[in-house]
Amino acid sequence: MKYINFDFAIDESFDINSYEQIALRAFTDLHIKRTGKMSGWLECEKLLKDTEKKQMFKIVKEVKKEADVLVVIGIGGSYLGAKAAIDFLSDYYKFEEGLEVIFVGNSLSEKYLIDTAKYLENKNFYINVISKSGGTLEPAIAFRYFKDMVEKKYKSEAKKHIIITTSKNSGSLRKISIREGYRTLFIPDNIGGRYSVLTPVGLFPIACAGFDVEKILEGAKETKEEVDSVSYRKNPAMQYAVIRNVLYKQGKDIEVYSTFNPNMRQFLEWLKQLFGESECKNFAGIFPASLILSTDLHSMGQLMQQGKRNIFETFINANRENVKNNLYLEKDKNDLDNLNFVTHKNINEINKIARLATMKAHREGKVPIIDISFEKQDEKTLGAMFYFFEYSCAISAYILGVNPFNQPGVEAYKKNIKEILNKK
Amino acid sequence: MKYINFDFAIDESFDINSYEQIALRAFTDLHIKRTGKMSGWLECEKLLKDTEKKQMFKIVKEVKKEADVLVVIGIGGSYLGAKAAIDFLSDYYKFEEGLEVIFVGNSLSEKYLIDTAKYLENKNFYINVISKSGGTLEPAIAFRYFKDMVEKKYKSEAKKHIIITTSKNSGSLRKISIREGYRTLFIPDNIGGRYSVLTPVGLFPIACAGFDVEKILEGAKETKEEVDSVSYRKNPAMQYAVIRNVLYKQGKDIEVYSTFNPNMRQFLEWLKQLFGESECKNFAGIFPASLILSTDLHSMGQLMQQGKRNIFETFINANRENVKNNLYLEKDKNDLDNLNFVTHKNINEINKIARLATMKAHREGKVPIIDISFEKQDEKTLGAMFYFFEYSCAISAYILGVNPFNQPGVEAYKKNIKEILNKK
Repeated sequence: MKYINFDFAIDESFDINSYEQIALRAFTDLHIKRTGKMSGWLECEKLLKDTEKKQMFKIVKEVKKEADVLVVIGIGGSYLGAKAAIDFLSDYYKFEEGLEVIFVGNSLSEKYLIDTAKYLENKNFYINVISKSGGTLEPAIAFRYFKDMVEKKYKSEAKKHIIITTSKNSGSLRKISIREGYRTLFIPDNIGGRYSVLTPVGLFPIACAGFDVEKILEGAKETKEEVDSVSYRKNPAMQYAVIRNVLYKQGKDIEVYSTFNPNMRQFLEWLKQLFGESECKNFAGIFPASLILSTDLHSMGQLMQQGKRNIFETFINANRENVKNNLYLEKDKNDLDNLNFVTHKNINEINKIARLATMKAHREGKVPIIDISFEKQDEKTLGAMFYFFEYSCAISAYILGVNPFNQPGVEAYKKNIKEILNKK
Repeated sequence: MKYINFDFAIDESFDINSYEQIALRAFTDLHIKRTGKMSGWLECEKLLKDTEKKQMFKIVKEVKKEADVLVVIGIGGSYLGAKAAIDFLSDYYKFEEGLEVIFVGNSLSEKYLIDTAKYLENKNFYINVISKSGGTLEPAIAFRYFKDMVEKKYKSEAKKHIIITTSKNSGSLRKISIREGYRTLFIPDNIGGRYSVLTPVGLFPIACAGFDVEKILEGAKETKEEVDSVSYRKNPAMQYAVIRNVLYKQGKDIEVYSTFNPNMRQFLEWLKQLFGESECKNFAGIFPASLILSTDLHSMGQLMQQGKRNIFETFINANRENVKNNLYLEKDKNDLDNLNFVTHKNINEINKIARLATMKAHREGKVPIIDISFEKQDEKTLGAMFYFFEYSCAISAYILGVNPFNQPGVEAYKKNIKEILNKK
């Protein structure tokens, strides 16, 4: 594929082509049956009308000009994609002046709310509340809290500082946005939370953070065209879906996502929601876990090498980090640390060698390996990756025989909260 | 126990007392056989001699006075404990002036090294390299890189800015420290990396971050005395070890650590190393995973409720976050968000209710629950928690029939790196 390299190392008897019929049935399920009609994300290039895009960019421009901080209020799919993208594209420290994007409403930590309010005290800020329904407890609490703060701080100007991202046609947040006259960006009704990163849910915060969302959309669109136009035998998105189901049937019920890029931690969290929530139903499905390497080789490495063989590992890595100049260690005349032998390689190359060494070691330890890599940590690649995994996940869920677009189990604890609160 | 509450909800036929003999055999293994003699951490109150402590605090005082940043270079056990402690005790933002502690040498990311160097450019900093042997690639590379930076910046004063934490009697880092005359703190030879947080490995960075390590040691010591003095039937540290082994035998081969305190994320990473590396050998052992809630209820909640029933869940939570004043939402006359019903509770209470609601929901979803909680997020509790889990982990590994103190599998990828580097 243009942006994504795909390879795998399963045992020798494995023949990817023999699963073509299974993949094609899932393909039919996705493209023809369109369960619950929640597959609006498939048309990634049409999600935003030109007028909507224009309105969004106008607000982005204003926020970047006026504010120090954008406070994004959202949880789950209303949070993970934007955070994943911003981390993927950012430096590890905030070097430049300009808008900072922070995320709240994704927990019920009192301390986090109080600390964030304190942090915002002497700063200019906007808030962007993201919720399709408006009924989710965590962001609703954070919204009421920060809305109050905005109203006290900006008084008659308060309205300007609140941007809503919600459904056009239903939900309490939409009601609030109409009543108060807040500027509002819309989430298409045929796209669920974990598939929403390429709508204003993700695009608005990412654009405010200073990144080129047109390029993200372009990468997604190019990948969609590739995925749509090639047959199963040349289609990594479908093959990835097949392989993980085959391994699951063989008793590998944990998928470990491993990256050697620490700033992809949040991207792996996005993946865990995407696959975990889409597939884990009817008391079945693969448990998704993640490792940040080489960090976690020094904590989970023992397990990966010699623990229970109920795991397979999917490596997701940049071949080149987003740095201007390569870093080499200098030779040391004493060489007491025995490192002169790596001074002819730059650190990025050493990191890549560590990746190859790890794949080899885990493969020898009988862990099936899937290897997904890309050349650059940039916007187009990121868009490609979002689409690739969304597509692959939908196919994978249909292969498993479940609807990728519902989440019947997530209501249980919410119901209990209301019961306990009402009882007391 | 004084600092830690322990409870569990397994199925009705489960009788904790019937496993007493199994626990006592493990107890004997730990206290009498002392495999490999790596159980120095048991004597947590004697790990640091008074003279060593005095020397350490003298350096801490100097670093806090002179530096803006302490750069801690370490990976695995030389990193996770200190980071866990600092996050556990800190605010979510850096509000006060004073020393900042950052961690490097825990990955091979070129970008992270370059960005960190840029971040340090106009700051005063010390480095603290932590490695028992000095032979680990990641911290060795970071040390050579930042040592070079220190030497260029501080010239004849450079030596003062480098503090070593290593073995007294062996390893290349010890050789370097002697040759260069660096000030050095020692790691006892009979304590391995993942058990080293209560030695200068953890205590020095934690003290530099401004926390009271004497209280951490006191909490550990009190917990040690409790664990040592009560029988199995009243001993949560032993019972926790038993329960997880019983569940594992029943096919629950994933343990999910769940916390509603986002600043415990890193503590759970410390736990994953502790248990994963101690137990996962001979192609057996529990896969440790972690959830930060309520965040991850909106990504992994579906799986916890209705995924494959190969999981059990261990909740680890503060009953009270470290905040001065409680936060209540204000009543809203329109109540469009339907939140007036929670305004009589403060957010900490709502968070606790969410925890109870989640435990109830997951239990109803047939997930066995272990519930570990504590009253305050403070130093004494943290020390208690460190000791509690270290002890419990050792017992648990002996019950499983493996040596808790070795990690034979972690060399495989290191060997491959050297092979690949030498080949090219």
